[in-house]
Amino acid sequence: MRVDLNCDLGESFGVYTIGQDEAVIPLVTSVNIACGFHAGDPQVMLKTVKLAKAHGTAIGAHPGLPDLVGFGRRDMRITPEEAYALTAYQIGALAAIAATVGVCLQHVKPHGALYNMAARDAVLAEAIATAVRDVDRNLILFGLAGSELVKAGERAGLRVAQEVFADRTYQADGTLTPRSRTDAMLHDAQEAAERVIRMLREGVVRATDGTDVPIQADTVCVHGDGPKALAFVKEIRERLQSSGVELRAVGE
Amino acid sequence: MRVDLNCDLGESFGVYTIGQDEAVIPLVTSVNIACGFHAGDPQVMLKTVKLAKAHGTAIGAHPGLPDLVGFGRRDMRITPEEAYALTAYQIGALAAIAATVGVCLQHVKPHGALYNMAARDAVLAEAIATAVRDVDRNLILFGLAGSELVKAGERAGLRVAQEVFADRTYQADGTLTPRSRTDAMLHDAQEAAERVIRMLREGVVRATDGTDVPIQADTVCVHGDGPKALAFVKEIRERLQSSGVELRAVGE
Amino acid sequence: MRVDLNCDLGESFGVYTIGQDEAVIPLVTSVNIACGFHAGDPQVMLKTVKLAKAHGTAIGAHPGLPDLVGFGRRDMRITPEEAYALTAYQIGALAAIAATVGVCLQHVKPHGALYNMAARDAVLAEAIATAVRDVDRNLILFGLAGSELVKAGERAGLRVAQEVFADRTYQADGTLTPRSRTDAMLHDAQEAAERVIRMLREGVVRATDGTDVPIQADTVCVHGDGPKALAFVKEIRERLQSSGVELRAVGE
Amino acid sequence: MRVDLNCDLGESFGVYTIGQDEAVIPLVTSVNIACGFHAGDPQVMLKTVKLAKAHGTAIGAHPGLPDLVGFGRRDMRITPEEAYALTAYQIGALAAIAATVGVCLQHVKPHGALYNMAARDAVLAEAIATAVRDVDRNLILFGLAGSELVKAGERAGLRVAQEVFADRTYQADGTLTPRSRTDAMLHDAQEAAERVIRMLREGVVRATDGTDVPIQADTVCVHGDGPKALAFVKEIRERLQSSGVELRAVGE
Repeated sequence: MRVDLNCDLGESFGVYTIGQDEAVIPLVTSVNIACGFHAGDPQVMLKTVKLAKAHGTAIGAHPGLPDLVGFGRRDMRITPEEAYALTAYQIGALAAIAATVGVCLQHVKPHGALYNMAARDAVLAEAIATAVRDVDRNLILFGLAGSELVKAGERAGLRVAQEVFADRTYQADGTLTPRSRTDAMLHDAQEAAERVIRMLREGVVRATDGTDVPIQADTVCVHGDGPKALAFVKEIRERLQSSGVELRAVGE
Repeated sequence: MRVDLNCDLGESFGVYTIGQDEAVIPLVTSVNIACGFHAGDPQVMLKTVKLAKAHGTAIGAHPGLPDLVGFGRRDMRITPEEAYALTAYQIGALAAIAATVGVCLQHVKPHGALYNMAARDAVLAEAIATAVRDVDRNLILFGLAGSELVKAGERAGLRVAQEVFADRTYQADGTLTPRSRTDAMLHDAQEAAERVIRMLREGVVRATDGTDVPIQADTVCVHGDGPKALAFVKEIRERLQSSGVELRAVGE
Repeated sequence: MRVDLNCDLGESFGVYTIGQDEAVIPLVTSVNIACGFHAGDPQVMLKTVKLAKAHGTAIGAHPGLPDLVGFGRRDMRITPEEAYALTAYQIGALAAIAATVGVCLQHVKPHGALYNMAARDAVLAEAIATAVRDVDRNLILFGLAGSELVKAGERAGLRVAQEVFADRTYQADGTLTPRSRTDAMLHDAQEAAERVIRMLREGVVRATDGTDVPIQADTVCVHGDGPKALAFVKEIRERLQSSGVELRAVGE
Repeated sequence: MRVDLNCDLGESFGVYTIGQDEAVIPLVTSVNIACGFHAGDPQVMLKTVKLAKAHGTAIGAHPGLPDLVGFGRRDMRITPEEAYALTAYQIGALAAIAATVGVCLQHVKPHGALYNMAARDAVLAEAIATAVRDVDRNLILFGLAGSELVKAGERAGLRVAQEVFADRTYQADGTLTPRSRTDAMLHDAQEAAERVIRMLREGVVRATDGTDVPIQADTVCVHGDGPKALAFVKEIRERLQSSGVELRAVGE
């Protein structure tokens, strides 16, 4: 049993600092680095890439919508052509920054609203997957487990990583419980770790209605903002490792 | 005798159209494509790259200052670290867009105020040249002939192209006559072509004070905005070719 | 019988020029000036305000979504609080620019996707209407005739102007025929003028299914981009005037 | 003896939080609120205005350069026309936001590089001062004591407030010691308070070379970022008050 732990990083911008990049990076195996559209700037990207390199963490592009003030979290009705071009642009920007320190990108994971829209919308998903493949067919595409984005990646001939969320619950249809629901979040790291282990061992997760739904977990998204989040990640790591789960970047 | 003709392209943005890209691209051998900071957007970049590919024109990145409203023409006091990171970022963004259609970048030419500041400022020039080399040491760096940027490119081990301006006059110290002076511009294409031929043949240009100053012309910058500019380029092309000058991209 | 003719203006940005502001402004009675979010910049705004003042044309703010590359035409899921704040911000920005030349704003008309979303979404409409009122209760709110925005304006105690489109057809439910339909546009200025006259005289418009639907026309939106659009506006003007319709800004 | 204490506030942006607005606002008499160009966004501005209103603190616009990633701290070569328009724009944006909660602006203080450039450059200073006056001649212009901006404000017929810095030292010519110098900063709040009291009482400050130079202190700039800065402000406040200095907004 092995799994990847990934975290969003490099989300600072100019004088604005966000996240605890230094603290979380040793705890994960892959990082998704913001590329300047929803967060990040060229200097932050370079600093984050250096940090990841220093810790031997695999690097991925985290392209987002052109919406800095909304942090890329607001749905925008973009065309597939726009999605294609902005995905390619952001991957390239990070790839060049990474090249300056001699590292290559492992993966691409769309951010925020782009990620969520691409999970549901097959056309948008195809535009993104095609852009990833056309830039570099060796990149691994991260998408919500079972989503349109994962399917589009497979159709495009890409290696994909099905992503699960350690701190979120799932519904009977396999989708995430909306954050507006009171049972959307898991607050207990032990329970979260046990769920991930069950996903890896049995390929299922217990949904909020009590049924088991099939799910594939290639990479687990964790968060590093705030001391509570860090403690949560640390506990999940330890429980996974003590249960014999190997933590390794998907591309290794 | 051979020389490259280059032109700035892909400067449209969103619904805003600028330049006559379709008309000018068949007339030049290299194009400098805006990368989204001072002009251009991902879709415009993709469209421009496709246009260049269709005409077999060599492609270069035209990174600029983060100043869309000022079109990158306003001096900004940026640090060498900022220049390094924003240069790498923009090269990569265009390189990925170009990769989606199967073409590679030939060169990098800083835009506007970044170009002018790097011509004078050795520290800024070094930051830019180092960024170009660190992203891809096969890229050719375009800089004002005799400028600090050209020197920095050579120090960085890059192949450089010394750029001259067909429609500008030079001063006794080899610098361009400031646009504020009435004798800054050449309006006669025949005279412009003869100057370029003399640069190629004799390695000198007649300065505004009547003296000859040494200059190396690897690439000639022309403009394509407006019918007058296009006619100027066409006449220069014809005169150069009829004088036995071969027009070829520097990287060929 | 009287009606207002309004047109979107001041949509240039930096070096980018769009629209034929000088040509269209003498033909209309009110102008909607972009406020820097989807188009326009402080200098363009000042220039446009001066132009409107010179022609005695009434001035309105045309606030849009923070989406320059998409020209504010892409739906964005913004909260009512965001809509409130960005509406107030943009009105104020233009009001201050107008104050420098001694003119006051007559009205506010949301732009593009913000206009369309506010036509359908009562909560968003209320946020915008409340922002307009809270900034200056003398401002007139322009909204699609019969829309949620008009209703929200009335509830907020604002004077409203119901807007109709001279070059668009209407459906049986009173909404505009979507642009994707082949019968969405009117290309004949005489027919367009007659429709407006019928709206003014009888308060109805013939829908695409042949039925008459009630509609109130306080202001007619016309376009000024392109020679064809200008000719269309000129003909509508003449036909309205020769039919005894007085063209006057709503606030006069 | 009376003096104003002012502080820069409302510099958060989107999800990015900066400064300790809640903690510092009760300690000062005037706040300078960022207007969306170098920092701040419409919602942050509204929140900050409400906070200031709740504490009865006077509100001013803090217009900056259009340089979010550089926080408006990088010199940009803008024209006087650009400075005029962007100053008017930003004042208006904040004034409208303030109007929604029923408060008026007291003053305008340019931010960062705009402030520093306007202190030295009489032409730029005049553009800014004229914009302030043309928007609202009752606004008070804050400028570096003895600077070109203060002179331009007086020439424009504005009420001006000469600003001094509590934590900075002065040179023999009355200018601030550059931050690059080791003696640029004062770290002792008691010493800082005594300097301010001497400015108020005697109209002089002891320069770094030991001479006394004349200075007028209408308003004192303090900082609120970090616990140390807050403690510094608290101590200065107490020492000024215990020395009989009344702390009052300049406009009261």
